[in-house]
Amino acid sequence: MKIDFWFEFGSTYSYPVAMKIEKMVTEQGGHLEWKPFLLGPIFSNQGWHDSPFNIYPEKGKYMWRDLERICEADGLNYKKPTSFPRNGLKAARIACLFSGEKWVPEFIRSVYAANFELDLDISLEEILKKCLPFSDEESFTKIKRANTSLAKQMLKENTDQAKKKGIFGAPTFMVGDEIFWGGDRLHAAIQWAKNNQ
Amino acid sequence: MKIDFWFEFGSTYSYPVAMKIEKMVTEQGGHLEWKPFLLGPIFSNQGWHDSPFNIYPEKGKYMWRDLERICEADGLNYKKPTSFPRNGLKAARIACLFSGEKWVPEFIRSVYAANFELDLDISLEEILKKCLPFSDEESFTKIKRANTSLAKQMLKENTDQAKKKGIFGAPTFMVGDEIFWGGDRLHAAIQWAKNNQ
Repeated sequence: MKIDFWFEFGSTYSYPVAMKIEKMVTEQGGHLEWKPFLLGPIFSNQGWHDSPFNIYPEKGKYMWRDLERICEADGLNYKKPTSFPRNGLKAARIACLFSGEKWVPEFIRSVYAANFELDLDISLEEILKKCLPFSDEESFTKIKRANTSLAKQMLKENTDQAKKKGIFGAPTFMVGDEIFWGGDRLHAAIQWAKNNQ
Repeated sequence: MKIDFWFEFGSTYSYPVAMKIEKMVTEQGGHLEWKPFLLGPIFSNQGWHDSPFNIYPEKGKYMWRDLERICEADGLNYKKPTSFPRNGLKAARIACLFSGEKWVPEFIRSVYAANFELDLDISLEEILKKCLPFSDEESFTKIKRANTSLAKQMLKENTDQAKKKGIFGAPTFMVGDEIFWGGDRLHAAIQWAKNNQ
């Protein structure tokens, strides 16, 4: 069975999922596809020019408390970021361009940890460099390649694909054409994949 | 342990919860408090004058499919209502005014079944009469009492209380001051109640 995990680096609820999903899916004998995309253009389509958690304060207040509870239950070292949402554009381009390479899942987790455990600005190349498991020089080259139009185009295509599939938030799990939205649907998505694939 | 279940009769995701929550909570030795309220005034505060599932079509499309899956998993006879959201004002006034009476939980479930299994207009008194476990005459009297200013006031107070507590959607579960939003958080709410009460 195969699960696509659509995630955005700025997304709070994607953080606990990113930290556990690979283990959960592979333990069930499944294959996980990491699908970075941007929520910005999708939110814009809905008329939102900021995170709905900032636009709707009650929703935001709840989310921060909920995230704290989830991280505690998952044993994660969560620290509320002092800036939200952080711009994950460059991180997403890296994850997109090098998609399929063995080091990418660990890079993704490092970026989430930088944002939600260490409260670091993941839009900065110097932070991303620390998330890459390479020498400074190699990391520098990888980041440079992620600034090319090819990488930009690849991320744009992922985001367009997400839009076309009807994805409207993150984290989203897809099993074939079935959409499961929200971290609390991860179990349901895995169950669905097991029963239907 | 005690769980407050804040629900709105028009709310789709409240339906599968309403059908199972009492059994789940009492099986765990807990006490369930039914808390009817209206989402309309709360959505208005957020600038929405319709259900967000109608305002944001992608979200709506997902919700209908998701609800179908959940009902199938729960073994419920779900039928997509031809009108959404239905006006649950009168049903909520009844549930509010007679809150605590033994027949109320079954009445609540009957109204949800009318809306989401039988596709009936729950705003109509003739439909609500069929949901009440009384003779025609007694039901008529109950409905009449639910049209008094006392019943109106009680529902208004519930809705104001929900707003004050930071509730922004339904179903919502409250354990003390802890809010859990969404049907998929029911297990987490029960777990929280067990661990913290």
